Amino acid sequence: MTVPRHLVSIDDLSLTEMEALFEKARLYSEDSRAWSHVARGSIVASLFYEPSTRTRLSFESAMLRLGGGVITAADMSFSSASKGESLADTVRVVAGYADALILRHQSEGAARLAAEYSAVPVINAGDGSHEHPTQTLCDLYSLWIERGRIEGLDVVFAGDLRYSRTVHSFAYALARFRANIVCVPQPGFEMPTHVVKRLREEFGVEPVRAEAGRLGELAAQSDVVYLTPQKPHQLSLFTDPQGLSVEHVDAVYMTRPQTERFGQDAVLDETNYVQLGKRQMAAESLRDAVVMHPLPRREEINADLDGDPRSIYFKQAARGVPIRMAILASLLGEADCLAGPGTARRPAWKAHAEGLVCGREACVSRTETRHVSPKFCLASRVPLLASCAYCSHEIPFGAVGCSTTRNFHLPGSRDLRKIRPDHMVFFSDPDGALAAGFSAAARVGHSR
Amino acid sequence: MTVPRHLVSIDDLSLTEMEALFEKARLYSEDSRAWSHVARGSIVASLFYEPSTRTRLSFESAMLRLGGGVITAADMSFSSASKGESLADTVRVVAGYADALILRHQSEGAARLAAEYSAVPVINAGDGSHEHPTQTLCDLYSLWIERGRIEGLDVVFAGDLRYSRTVHSFAYALARFRANIVCVPQPGFEMPTHVVKRLREEFGVEPVRAEAGRLGELAAQSDVVYLTPQKPHQLSLFTDPQGLSVEHVDAVYMTRPQTERFGQDAVLDETNYVQLGKRQMAAESLRDAVVMHPLPRREEINADLDGDPRSIYFKQAARGVPIRMAILASLLGEADCLAGPGTARRPAWKAHAEGLVCGREACVSRTETRHVSPKFCLASRVPLLASCAYCSHEIPFGAVGCSTTRNFHLPGSRDLRKIRPDHMVFFSDPDGALAAGFSAAARVGHSR
Amino acid sequence: MTVPRHLVSIDDLSLTEMEALFEKARLYSEDSRAWSHVARGSIVASLFYEPSTRTRLSFESAMLRLGGGVITAADMSFSSASKGESLADTVRVVAGYADALILRHQSEGAARLAAEYSAVPVINAGDGSHEHPTQTLCDLYSLWIERGRIEGLDVVFAGDLRYSRTVHSFAYALARFRANIVCVPQPGFEMPTHVVKRLREEFGVEPVRAEAGRLGELAAQSDVVYLTPQKPHQLSLFTDPQGLSVEHVDAVYMTRPQTERFGQDAVLDETNYVQLGKRQMAAESLRDAVVMHPLPRREEINADLDGDPRSIYFKQAARGVPIRMAILASLLGEADCLAGPGTARRPAWKAHAEGLVCGREACVSRTETRHVSPKFCLASRVPLLASCAYCSHEIPFGAVGCSTTRNFHLPGSRDLRKIRPDHMVFFSDPDGALAAGFSAAARVGHSR
Repeated sequence: MTVPRHLVSIDDLSLTEMEALFEKARLYSEDSRAWSHVARGSIVASLFYEPSTRTRLSFESAMLRLGGGVITAADMSFSSASKGESLADTVRVVAGYADALILRHQSEGAARLAAEYSAVPVINAGDGSHEHPTQTLCDLYSLWIERGRIEGLDVVFAGDLRYSRTVHSFAYALARFRANIVCVPQPGFEMPTHVVKRLREEFGVEPVRAEAGRLGELAAQSDVVYLTPQKPHQLSLFTDPQGLSVEHVDAVYMTRPQTERFGQDAVLDETNYVQLGKRQMAAESLRDAVVMHPLPRREEINADLDGDPRSIYFKQAARGVPIRMAILASLLGEADCLAGPGTARRPAWKAHAEGLVCGREACVSRTETRHVSPKFCLASRVPLLASCAYCSHEIPFGAVGCSTTRNFHLPGSRDLRKIRPDHMVFFSDPDGALAAGFSAAARVGHSR
Repeated sequence: MTVPRHLVSIDDLSLTEMEALFEKARLYSEDSRAWSHVARGSIVASLFYEPSTRTRLSFESAMLRLGGGVITAADMSFSSASKGESLADTVRVVAGYADALILRHQSEGAARLAAEYSAVPVINAGDGSHEHPTQTLCDLYSLWIERGRIEGLDVVFAGDLRYSRTVHSFAYALARFRANIVCVPQPGFEMPTHVVKRLREEFGVEPVRAEAGRLGELAAQSDVVYLTPQKPHQLSLFTDPQGLSVEHVDAVYMTRPQTERFGQDAVLDETNYVQLGKRQMAAESLRDAVVMHPLPRREEINADLDGDPRSIYFKQAARGVPIRMAILASLLGEADCLAGPGTARRPAWKAHAEGLVCGREACVSRTETRHVSPKFCLASRVPLLASCAYCSHEIPFGAVGCSTTRNFHLPGSRDLRKIRPDHMVFFSDPDGALAAGFSAAARVGHSR
Repeated sequence: MTVPRHLVSIDDLSLTEMEALFEKARLYSEDSRAWSHVARGSIVASLFYEPSTRTRLSFESAMLRLGGGVITAADMSFSSASKGESLADTVRVVAGYADALILRHQSEGAARLAAEYSAVPVINAGDGSHEHPTQTLCDLYSLWIERGRIEGLDVVFAGDLRYSRTVHSFAYALARFRANIVCVPQPGFEMPTHVVKRLREEFGVEPVRAEAGRLGELAAQSDVVYLTPQKPHQLSLFTDPQGLSVEHVDAVYMTRPQTERFGQDAVLDETNYVQLGKRQMAAESLRDAVVMHPLPRREEINADLDGDPRSIYFKQAARGVPIRMAILASLLGEADCLAGPGTARRPAWKAHAEGLVCGREACVSRTETRHVSPKFCLASRVPLLASCAYCSHEIPFGAVGCSTTRNFHLPGSRDLRKIRPDHMVFFSDPDGALAAGFSAAARVGHSR
């Protein structure tokens, strides 16, 4: 059996592959009824452990448009799970009924786990606060359709930038495409440090405090931050001597307050939440900006914008169907958008570890107690970072051994650069390393 | 984008269109497996905000028989709605996934609202106590199949005529087809005044107290009322000098007690509810009568009738599939039963109003607080009646202005006949008219 | 209308028919996408009164693989049932929407009841603790695929043999195919007496206490019982002079503790439940044994076996699709595996009874109070046994009348052998017979 290609993370796709998917989706969208031969005879299974009707219907519509069949478990949490079946087992069983699985799960990393056990392609339709790659693809595709490209665009993110998974994933993807992001957060709901840090470390994106005047009322109560890939020639666009000034915005991406994900310290007076309406969109810099929203919305986009030609949020939702058609057709082997397993941006560098567990309570390695053992990746070599292979959360460690020398080093040691990644063994602390038979290395070169 | 044709109310269809649907349904029913090319490549979305498994399965079977695809949200009330999405938004999103929407909702007028926002045809699969046009079509179709025509038939309505939406809708439709209705109500569950009033005012149907002797045991405890379109030549059928006597019945339409819709003053000893069995059906006047029931039944039709050739209630349910095939095919543009948007019986005459709200708590204009503002229609000019454009409930008003003269009049004024409907502005009271800058008209011609 | 063929019980199928189904399933499994013409235009309805996602998805996948359509009610218990509709009515309605019904119900005998009322084939997808014939067929098919035959195989049943419906049904089916069963029960969870009794009386299967040594650790804490069709030539396989010794096992069928079905006297320390892992499977007698499990599993099969080539439990689950394709195609008249209604192993011999009711609380004749009256079968003539026609439970009786002589006899009377089954009338006691106008027969020939 060949290992199937999955779509667990947006990082599983290269930029070239994404653009091929966009082209295919555009082709599909030209005539929605013309593709019912593409997946004839194939079946996908929709496994939803939490309800998400719009995501589910969008996927199912896509499969039906391709002429395939759908089997649906819209509420898995009341079913096998209640008989105590592990996710790994359910996946192995249902993979025997279908040619691809669409999985929605409340645990972070659930789709990665499913992909490990499934004999057929797994598509992540949302795993907790972690990833929802087809949503991100839909957002990118919509921007690509509207603007003809993504590189170099200026995209405003407004509202709750703290708890919105959608915004974080979209931000990473925009950074990969070398687009610029203008953060206009609801006060108290700024882009989290770990997201800015990853944007800087993995994508070379630099945050600049920006002058918000041209954004008008939209940014009246916010501290605007401009996130840009480090390309100096672009900065010439910004002429204000006191700092960056946002002159022309390509898209405003609005988000609702993610109340259901609020931490204990999140305080929001919803009546004071940023609202986008005709008045806010009257700012000169927003003249051509399309208005996007992952939906559902509540009050944050005023109904007076619904008829505005710049408002594309319902079109954006509808575009979820052709982009999902492109993904399904590709993973089922009926379209040639994907180059093969080796092309993703971030290869899964396995990290050996002993005695480490993921610290994130919502991680599938914590919620699935059967058939799963913790797995880790090297997220970066310099600085040396380990992350959970399921939920991508950073894992603190206290010692790193070398499986050939049987010595171990402390996290800040320069000697770590000399150990090959596949020889590294991570421990939560030096005692763990000692207990596993490793010796403390001479502290030459230690720096912290 | 052309405006799609919807099926929100049975009044959206002309008699000619209904007959064309019946013909098409009969054709479809001749070979259930022969039509899988008709809607190939098309998709309908089933959106059910309250469960109604039989209605849903009947629609889905119809779409599959036509070769189309179905995406289903069997329990929308636990989904997007819980994230606070308005019905208008959900409809706009799902309309991007499908070629037609089937909507079941607990709020009256929900389907009308959905039709306002949907880019694709909306089919009302029941909106609270308001309408369920495909049920009515199924009932009419079944009668048409059994009797070859509808005009002039004598149809007995028995049981709970007060709370049965099905009976009210069927009564209006029979009146349009100039059939006669014999009301044999459970005592205390008579046909409501507003239904009889509408039958008289809109359809010219006259109620006559009838002599129940020939109906035998079925009518033993009821005051029978005969509702007939005013066609004197028909009355010659009734020979009893003391009043109308029902000589020959074409169909008995039996209804269960609609316990879940009972008002506070409804008292029913269920053991005393009218029962139809072999004994009741032995009456001479019922010799040829088919027995109909919208199902589910409880005890009101005895199982001893199930094998009787006159019992067609299960056939009637099965006929829901071909008639829904005809509707779906027509709205999807794959059958030519419908003449176009302009042909419905009752054009939606918009009424301008200020400060009015619908008085019905279950109306969608009350339950959907976002994206919806009240809308009203002129239900009739003489007498001048306004109704909610969503739930069809009559709206009391206290003044009517003329947008050209800027004068207002009180409800009973004869001058109202001179104002063009599209110049009328309705107010809840004269103070509202004054506040809106209208002047009291001279009271010439006022009569009440 | 011709009476449709149903699949309510595994006993509805002859051995020849089952083998034809296996052949067809093997053909279907060779290319899962090649059969989408077989049931094109046909529709099945999935009616699930209790959730069973895997069973449902497996059936739906099978129907889609055949090119047919599916309408699904995944949670019927919250729907029509709540409006008080009887199962008999729901079945008659839904039979009008589809070409076959798949029914899952919590009441024993529900599928038999449905088959009485349905105009289209009914497939039992589990009726309480009673039957789940497609699970049994899937198990048999899997064994047939792995071993090329079923007759004469030695199959170990391990774990909870007391409450597992799957094990009981599989045991009867193996007995029909003349395979041998080795019972290795969890102590306290032995095969129930009524199952062993039926195996002996209906299938001539003889239980023998066996020597467990060769089974190694798997049987360390069990009293092993060997159940074999009485074919002396087979016993030569067993060479141990002290009793039967199990030398070579073809399959181990493992079961989870059926906690949700435990009676009040069932006590289980789950940490002590038999576990099958690499260590247990190291026993010489299990060298070639395939490991089967109806799934879901909990801890009873160790994950260390998942990669073992003998572990076929996930394959077994996947084989549910082709075998269900074979069943669906056959019942829809699109495959020729079934010979016709008359060929089942156990014809339904109707037993006339007066005043008897089934004693089993979970029987559909007890839970469905409308449209159903008790029905009984003659389960065997010598000894004379009556059973509930729905749940198959044995019914005690106190007198049997002859409808021609109008005499009645007590249960043990030899005269009973002279009465033709269709002349028998069963009573709960002699008083009932007297009250019905029967006379006590002279006690000639009475023996007890």
